[in-house]
Amino acid sequence: MTAIDKIRLAKQASASIARANTLQKNAALRSIADHLVAHSKEIIEANELDLAKGSSEGLSAGLIDRLRLDKARIESLSEAVLQVASLADPIGDVKRGMTLPNGLRLNQVAVPFGVVGAIYEARPNVTIDIAALALKSGNAVVLRGGSASENTNLLLVSILQKAIASAGLPSDAIQTVDDFGRQGAVEMMQARGLIDVLVPRGSAGLIKAVVEESKVPVLETGDGVVHIFVDESAREDWAVEIVHNSKVQRPSVCNALETLLVHQNAATKLLPSILGRLSESGVTIHGDDFTQSLFDGAVAATEEDWKAEYYSLDLAVKVVSGLDEALQHIAKYSTHHTESIITEDVSNAERFLQEVDSAVVMVNAATRFTDGGEFGFGAEVGISTQKLHARGPMGLAELTSTKWLVRGEGQTRV
Amino acid sequence: MTAIDKIRLAKQASASIARANTLQKNAALRSIADHLVAHSKEIIEANELDLAKGSSEGLSAGLIDRLRLDKARIESLSEAVLQVASLADPIGDVKRGMTLPNGLRLNQVAVPFGVVGAIYEARPNVTIDIAALALKSGNAVVLRGGSASENTNLLLVSILQKAIASAGLPSDAIQTVDDFGRQGAVEMMQARGLIDVLVPRGSAGLIKAVVEESKVPVLETGDGVVHIFVDESAREDWAVEIVHNSKVQRPSVCNALETLLVHQNAATKLLPSILGRLSESGVTIHGDDFTQSLFDGAVAATEEDWKAEYYSLDLAVKVVSGLDEALQHIAKYSTHHTESIITEDVSNAERFLQEVDSAVVMVNAATRFTDGGEFGFGAEVGISTQKLHARGPMGLAELTSTKWLVRGEGQTRV
Repeated sequence: MTAIDKIRLAKQASASIARANTLQKNAALRSIADHLVAHSKEIIEANELDLAKGSSEGLSAGLIDRLRLDKARIESLSEAVLQVASLADPIGDVKRGMTLPNGLRLNQVAVPFGVVGAIYEARPNVTIDIAALALKSGNAVVLRGGSASENTNLLLVSILQKAIASAGLPSDAIQTVDDFGRQGAVEMMQARGLIDVLVPRGSAGLIKAVVEESKVPVLETGDGVVHIFVDESAREDWAVEIVHNSKVQRPSVCNALETLLVHQNAATKLLPSILGRLSESGVTIHGDDFTQSLFDGAVAATEEDWKAEYYSLDLAVKVVSGLDEALQHIAKYSTHHTESIITEDVSNAERFLQEVDSAVVMVNAATRFTDGGEFGFGAEVGISTQKLHARGPMGLAELTSTKWLVRGEGQTRV
Repeated sequence: MTAIDKIRLAKQASASIARANTLQKNAALRSIADHLVAHSKEIIEANELDLAKGSSEGLSAGLIDRLRLDKARIESLSEAVLQVASLADPIGDVKRGMTLPNGLRLNQVAVPFGVVGAIYEARPNVTIDIAALALKSGNAVVLRGGSASENTNLLLVSILQKAIASAGLPSDAIQTVDDFGRQGAVEMMQARGLIDVLVPRGSAGLIKAVVEESKVPVLETGDGVVHIFVDESAREDWAVEIVHNSKVQRPSVCNALETLLVHQNAATKLLPSILGRLSESGVTIHGDDFTQSLFDGAVAATEEDWKAEYYSLDLAVKVVSGLDEALQHIAKYSTHHTESIITEDVSNAERFLQEVDSAVVMVNAATRFTDGGEFGFGAEVGISTQKLHARGPMGLAELTSTKWLVRGEGQTRV
């Protein structure tokens, strides 16, 4: 069986997944949760093969940790699937409805895409998250999870297939092309008419390659050069804690803070305490001249720092003349993921919310909240930084399309 | 000034169009409506240059007619712009909202895309329709209208620019690259980061070229191999009139009927009157064996007829064993635009609505109703046959993206 054969099987199974009602889909999700726990031992054995391969190939300790599945992590994966089961079914949701002057009744309702494709890297939990979200939203799914976790993913998909079959849904609705290497991803990107939407999730290089090569429409997940602007009126305690939390709580993810902008009238008062708190947590400050003059430990920032998504305990810091300069800096360097303003000034807050052109724009909150789990979506497919179809954290609703249902009594057009 | 310079101007102007409130945008639309009527004479003169060029190049009478603008058509264009002004502003519409357990308040609101691009052919009314819809939805727009209407389009865009400038909005927000020929379209398709979404509208060849070449996300408008299924229980009067209206009222458009499927138990009773009525209007019937045996004038249908979007007074007709075969035929040959069932059987109606995977699915109504104007959208950008972002007729709502606004009081992530 080739990769394209597997994609065709998913397409064939998609019609019956699309018709499954909520009770059937939730039963299948509960079955998945049960099967994962029941097969923990085999999953850990398969995962150990990937870990051994990763070690011998010199994967970093961080990547090895992301790759690892142990009993606790499998249980938490199982819990996440149960949480998806507990969410409202997005299918059938009536988005708009009206009666036309001629009596035709229109309903725009949410429907499944059909077949969702995902190309991702390393973390095997993505296999379970995306399969669970696809199933709950009535979609078949084709997965391509990267060679580093090949053994784990192949076993996980076979468990997913058994689990949904035992709940009466077609096992073909969940497919992996991990056994076809790079060619599997290529076939997915060419599968126009078979795969309805493709989600790349992983490094900037992976996403760029999929966006450029895919003939299938792509839901782009993107980098986060994330900014916080500390306004003149910012409360010191909020500024210190929000900046610290946004940078330090988990620096390796896309919603972590990368550049701090501070109003010049607040810099002398607030920067020493903000940067002092960061410094205690080991953050390296890349500052402009003003910042360096205020804070001894700062190294000089260059143009590259304003563009950097560090993914590390580094932070670019710039003192700006006010909200206008902050908005200009953000417009120039932001990747349109998440930005936050710390302010007590309601006009500045509203202007920031309106004028910053990003997926998520915040007032007096940590940027780390841009997350499907935090938003209440259960698992997440990824965070979209494009404007078409979905923007921000993508959950069940973002895996649906719509169709118009029109009911009449013989109406014809004049 | 090059094509890319003009695209950059649109991008620069997009921020101020996005911030314009409804009163300002409506004033600009009324100004456009006034300016069109006031400049009728010059528009007709420019249009005559295109008509003369079209005649000398041997354009068909049908295309010449689509190209023509006279006083009445300019007045109707002006009316259409006023209708767009009268529609509700889609910007700021709150799509979802919730308060998280930690007190963060989230609102997902509709925002403009930024810059909308349109690549289209022949009919100069599209220039006005798309510019008006883009303006009302807070977007800047870059237009590329095809060489056949170049003189008309260049003048129309200069009138649009003057009209919005006189209402206090930046004239740069409406751009044409018609003066750069094919290169203008190429620059648009490459303008990732400047143009946010590209709408191709015209022939299948044009759409395919844009979908395949564009680096900018595309809203695909598509062909319509449109089906009607006449069920066993169909009312004869509805079947006759709905089929006739769907085929004959305007055969050259994408929502016109192309293939009629008839339940075998209804064929003997209904087909003679359905086909007789069509025949009186000059429709050529391409029928299967059963159809030919029932109706003398039918020619033999081949495999090509089931795939045909005739755009003419031709109709493919097939007798099927029942709803199952009708659904299978539609799944195989439909372009997922519009399908309708004529039935008195509520179970069959609901099954058809659920299982047909098309942008618009109808019961007892003519397929010609798949239209932005009929749906109450004012003008239309086109009819989307893709599943991402927009499906079916695209009006103001389809020219918007969303962003998440998050308001807090110092929340940080645990």
